[in-house]
Amino acid sequence: MRRVLAVVSHPDDETFGCGGALALNAKQGGLSQVVCLTSDPPERSDELRAACETLGISEPVIMGLEKISAEDGVIRQVSDHIALFKPDVVITHIPSDYHRDHRATYEIVKEAVEWAAHMTTYEEPWLVGRLLLMEVNTLISSPHVLLDVSDVWALKEAAVENYPTQLSKFKDGYYQRFTRAKAELRGVQGGCSYAEAFIEEPLQRNGPFYETKASKSL
Amino acid sequence: MRRVLAVVSHPDDETFGCGGALALNAKQGGLSQVVCLTSDPPERSDELRAACETLGISEPVIMGLEKISAEDGVIRQVSDHIALFKPDVVITHIPSDYHRDHRATYEIVKEAVEWAAHMTTYEEPWLVGRLLLMEVNTLISSPHVLLDVSDVWALKEAAVENYPTQLSKFKDGYYQRFTRAKAELRGVQGGCSYAEAFIEEPLQRNGPFYETKASKSL
Amino acid sequence: MRRVLAVVSHPDDETFGCGGALALNAKQGGLSQVVCLTSDPPERSDELRAACETLGISEPVIMGLEKISAEDGVIRQVSDHIALFKPDVVITHIPSDYHRDHRATYEIVKEAVEWAAHMTTYEEPWLVGRLLLMEVNTLISSPHVLLDVSDVWALKEAAVENYPTQLSKFKDGYYQRFTRAKAELRGVQGGCSYAEAFIEEPLQRNGPFYETKASKSL
Amino acid sequence: MRRVLAVVSHPDDETFGCGGALALNAKQGGLSQVVCLTSDPPERSDELRAACETLGISEPVIMGLEKISAEDGVIRQVSDHIALFKPDVVITHIPSDYHRDHRATYEIVKEAVEWAAHMTTYEEPWLVGRLLLMEVNTLISSPHVLLDVSDVWALKEAAVENYPTQLSKFKDGYYQRFTRAKAELRGVQGGCSYAEAFIEEPLQRNGPFYETKASKSL
Amino acid sequence: MRRVLAVVSHPDDETFGCGGALALNAKQGGLSQVVCLTSDPPERSDELRAACETLGISEPVIMGLEKISAEDGVIRQVSDHIALFKPDVVITHIPSDYHRDHRATYEIVKEAVEWAAHMTTYEEPWLVGRLLLMEVNTLISSPHVLLDVSDVWALKEAAVENYPTQLSKFKDGYYQRFTRAKAELRGVQGGCSYAEAFIEEPLQRNGPFYETKASKSL
Amino acid sequence: MRRVLAVVSHPDDETFGCGGALALNAKQGGLSQVVCLTSDPPERSDELRAACETLGISEPVIMGLEKISAEDGVIRQVSDHIALFKPDVVITHIPSDYHRDHRATYEIVKEAVEWAAHMTTYEEPWLVGRLLLMEVNTLISSPHVLLDVSDVWALKEAAVENYPTQLSKFKDGYYQRFTRAKAELRGVQGGCSYAEAFIEEPLQRNGPFYETKASKSL
Repeated sequence: MRRVLAVVSHPDDETFGCGGALALNAKQGGLSQVVCLTSDPPERSDELRAACETLGISEPVIMGLEKISAEDGVIRQVSDHIALFKPDVVITHIPSDYHRDHRATYEIVKEAVEWAAHMTTYEEPWLVGRLLLMEVNTLISSPHVLLDVSDVWALKEAAVENYPTQLSKFKDGYYQRFTRAKAELRGVQGGCSYAEAFIEEPLQRNGPFYETKASKSL
Repeated sequence: MRRVLAVVSHPDDETFGCGGALALNAKQGGLSQVVCLTSDPPERSDELRAACETLGISEPVIMGLEKISAEDGVIRQVSDHIALFKPDVVITHIPSDYHRDHRATYEIVKEAVEWAAHMTTYEEPWLVGRLLLMEVNTLISSPHVLLDVSDVWALKEAAVENYPTQLSKFKDGYYQRFTRAKAELRGVQGGCSYAEAFIEEPLQRNGPFYETKASKSL
Repeated sequence: MRRVLAVVSHPDDETFGCGGALALNAKQGGLSQVVCLTSDPPERSDELRAACETLGISEPVIMGLEKISAEDGVIRQVSDHIALFKPDVVITHIPSDYHRDHRATYEIVKEAVEWAAHMTTYEEPWLVGRLLLMEVNTLISSPHVLLDVSDVWALKEAAVENYPTQLSKFKDGYYQRFTRAKAELRGVQGGCSYAEAFIEEPLQRNGPFYETKASKSL
Repeated sequence: MRRVLAVVSHPDDETFGCGGALALNAKQGGLSQVVCLTSDPPERSDELRAACETLGISEPVIMGLEKISAEDGVIRQVSDHIALFKPDVVITHIPSDYHRDHRATYEIVKEAVEWAAHMTTYEEPWLVGRLLLMEVNTLISSPHVLLDVSDVWALKEAAVENYPTQLSKFKDGYYQRFTRAKAELRGVQGGCSYAEAFIEEPLQRNGPFYETKASKSL
Repeated sequence: MRRVLAVVSHPDDETFGCGGALALNAKQGGLSQVVCLTSDPPERSDELRAACETLGISEPVIMGLEKISAEDGVIRQVSDHIALFKPDVVITHIPSDYHRDHRATYEIVKEAVEWAAHMTTYEEPWLVGRLLLMEVNTLISSPHVLLDVSDVWALKEAAVENYPTQLSKFKDGYYQRFTRAKAELRGVQGGCSYAEAFIEEPLQRNGPFYETKASKSL
Repeated sequence: MRRVLAVVSHPDDETFGCGGALALNAKQGGLSQVVCLTSDPPERSDELRAACETLGISEPVIMGLEKISAEDGVIRQVSDHIALFKPDVVITHIPSDYHRDHRATYEIVKEAVEWAAHMTTYEEPWLVGRLLLMEVNTLISSPHVLLDVSDVWALKEAAVENYPTQLSKFKDGYYQRFTRAKAELRGVQGGCSYAEAFIEEPLQRNGPFYETKASKSL
């Protein structure tokens, strides 16, 4: 049962960036969850809960930070959750995102993934298997992973509709059309109807803090 | 009458990357031309000529290089053509393109734009106004320019069809679908039906070689 | 009537970095203004006001921050002012400046220019036309713009003299001589008597937040 | 049966950089082979063949180039071999290596891995699973992979002895001592006796050229 | 009498990263001191004092910060100490360290070295001669300096033993073995028994703030 | 007796970039020499010889390459000369120079300095002490070294006059005025009349090839 955890800046980032991946994993019998750092205004929390329900995934964790900045306390909250949830895959924003909240979230997650693996910090440390980075408004130039989300596309499109506070900011259904056009383009690249694109970020091994160390084979 | 020159690696790059910009400029009364560095196999030259005709632009210049590499002779051929054609806008590939021919073409064009402006090299040196970089298969993450090409979209789609040698390499109309999906995504971003995306690369002034030097106002 | 806004770290940065550009724009009938993030010690506020008067430009806005750091509140204050002043050109520090206040100011301005354009944030959002980066003590290696400020050179030299608290820190008229030598070097490069050098930083279009989106021609 | 292909600049790079990985894979029942771009002086070819025998891996392919440079013909030779050998894992040098031959080899391999996957180039294209980068004299700062090679350490040490032309250049057994000290340090980091360190370089998907495209699950 | 100052994040960084350099300088008649930014838990202060005694160097300065971040007050405390201690050589962490405390310490020290030289800030400003960057857990790929610390190796190994709170976190003597293996590897590279590796970071001269300016010879 | 070797792309680069440093070293009793990679047109060789005479330095070595590219043969010629001349200081172009010949020369020199130190290549290998990078038309943003060349300024200005083929390309004495303005600006920064600016590039120690290895003190 694959466990996938998305850590995002704002309610709706999870749906736009990796809603398909989360829903697909759940549909395939895995466990998918969202940790969201902020919720401003507060009604977005309800929207996020509704979107997660639509995607068929677990209840989200909403941290409710006032601002997003890579500080020890925040990193620790995220690493605590990683140590608890034990994800095989963590998904977050790209470090080159034009939105500084997204860049700061990347920094926080990068650190949290490291600390969650430290046996000096946790009794049951957790070594994340893969770290994937997703695209919201800033596109990924050269993706490493194109995930076929055609089977859950209807869920993703439905989840977008759970965000009336955001959708209403734009006329002509900007976000609905952008979400679809992006997924279609990635779908053409991936040889399927709808896809999501990701950067694969290999995890480094610098310190003495991990339980699992050297590999036994390639 | 705006003059736009696209310098590309292979026949079809001009259509996929900036066919809309070239056609639009021509339709608006400007002069648009393509310099293509290679043509392998040779029948692609005919395809390129047909595509330019379809786009409603000038006859292309086909250099017919065997390989693309930033050597003095090649740079000089391109700068000669810039000095002759006197483009307001030069368009070429992005330096982060996954295709090394495209990266080498960027290098060549970057140098050629510089040398074309040197009064020590040309009796009538030419200072290019703008250098724009286009996307073929590698996407631009954060475009500076989104150009609405809806008015000439039919021409671009028709020009794609002038490349049977390339289209037939892929089944299910890959390139036609990719071209359309990319333009639709950029169209959503740009608030129009179909758009092309570009990086704006400001030109540096390092040496004493330019006729036109300091600006007289911002 | 061109509107030019300089956003700088400390009183005197505007004069050393772009005093000529501001004065020239005013002399040409434009509106030039300075937003200064700090004023420490407080008497530098008076010096800044005097310098702006000498340059023939508008009364400066002095934010009076205790420290310069890219925080939401500060970014918002600057974007509010951009939305109000509606500048065609914004000038600020280079991100490679050796002074960390200057680097932080660049970050703040970069964000503020983005947010000022958001129709979700402002009733009358403002899309800045150009973002130029100036040199104070750290030189620009390869300028994109050399602006001939010979016509207002006397004003710039006079404005420097409005900063006795700073000038007196150094003997032998360091800042006066540095300012003149830099302008002369840029003047030689620009084919005029005195020039100022700038980096042109093209603005990205990533999100759905802008009123004006795709261009209609190159 | 895992297939591992190391593409290296000079005879001995394979032993110093990934001799343990190659031997371990062979011992575990996999197929390991070396493609070596040069052999100067020619007697190093015999040393390489002896080293491969010692490591218990396949006969090496020795290309015998006079100089290493990322040219189309060379890239094609390597991609031909990749398409033929069908490796799960390709190992080569790091792009930050101080030795320019090593940097050029990285470039060649990076291109060759891409081209080997193109269905427009090969009837049976081959998509490499992993690209790993190894350390010879320039260390990897932050490895992604530490491979426990303790079980084949004796083979690696014996293979080093197959290079008398190289070992004799240095007194006091430099290379033997360096090889052992490096493996011990990596062993401490990896919680084992002897380890080899690698960078994991994720492969990009930019073009339409691959048979296998989108993933069906994370 | 050479004066060497190490500015580090945590007690034990000084021993692991440059304990040999500090002890060697002291043994050669120089003055060596440590400024340590944090001490958490507090008993690490005693360990640090013991380690410095073992290394034969001065009593350390323990700043006791709660968190490490490049803020003006912290930078000023460090620059004050530099102006007071007048070091010929300053040693700190590398900016590419995987530990964010180490990266932040680098930033602080880089700024502090600059400010300590300002005659506008200090009555007796101090121009540091060399800035060296050391390796703790993240290795230096390509060192500029390999320092032979064989003569003081016993002191470094003994100083490691002054950190029971840290050593006890790991079984099998991780840190003792890592320290020795790293020094042996650097020793092989340096042609001696035990060595420490450093990056040499040349200091820039951007502003008017230094007493000593141009060199009189190369 | 300090030995200084400048390796430059074209005749006149040595005078514009480091003529003061070369003359000053000679005047202080050192040996200064120029290796120039090209001479096109051939009469520039005579100009270079005259300039060296004016500067009071040794007869230059003119390699007469047709084009500048980092190939093994060229690198070897330069490393041969370094091993022969045994310079304490090598000066060449900056890698960020806008002129690609200058960038290629940097690459060649960087390699040549490395190879000249190899005891496997030379019977008497030579370890260069310092590598300095100079500014011709592209300025150095943040110099590490400002060298007071006031004492030999008249020689540098006279040496510029040895290049009529180059000076005549520009009207109004561009190069003379640029050379003077640059030296005056650097002079103000350095607290003297005329200065030259340099980047200090520390040399790496990666391989086993050096006779002199670890340092014995900081």
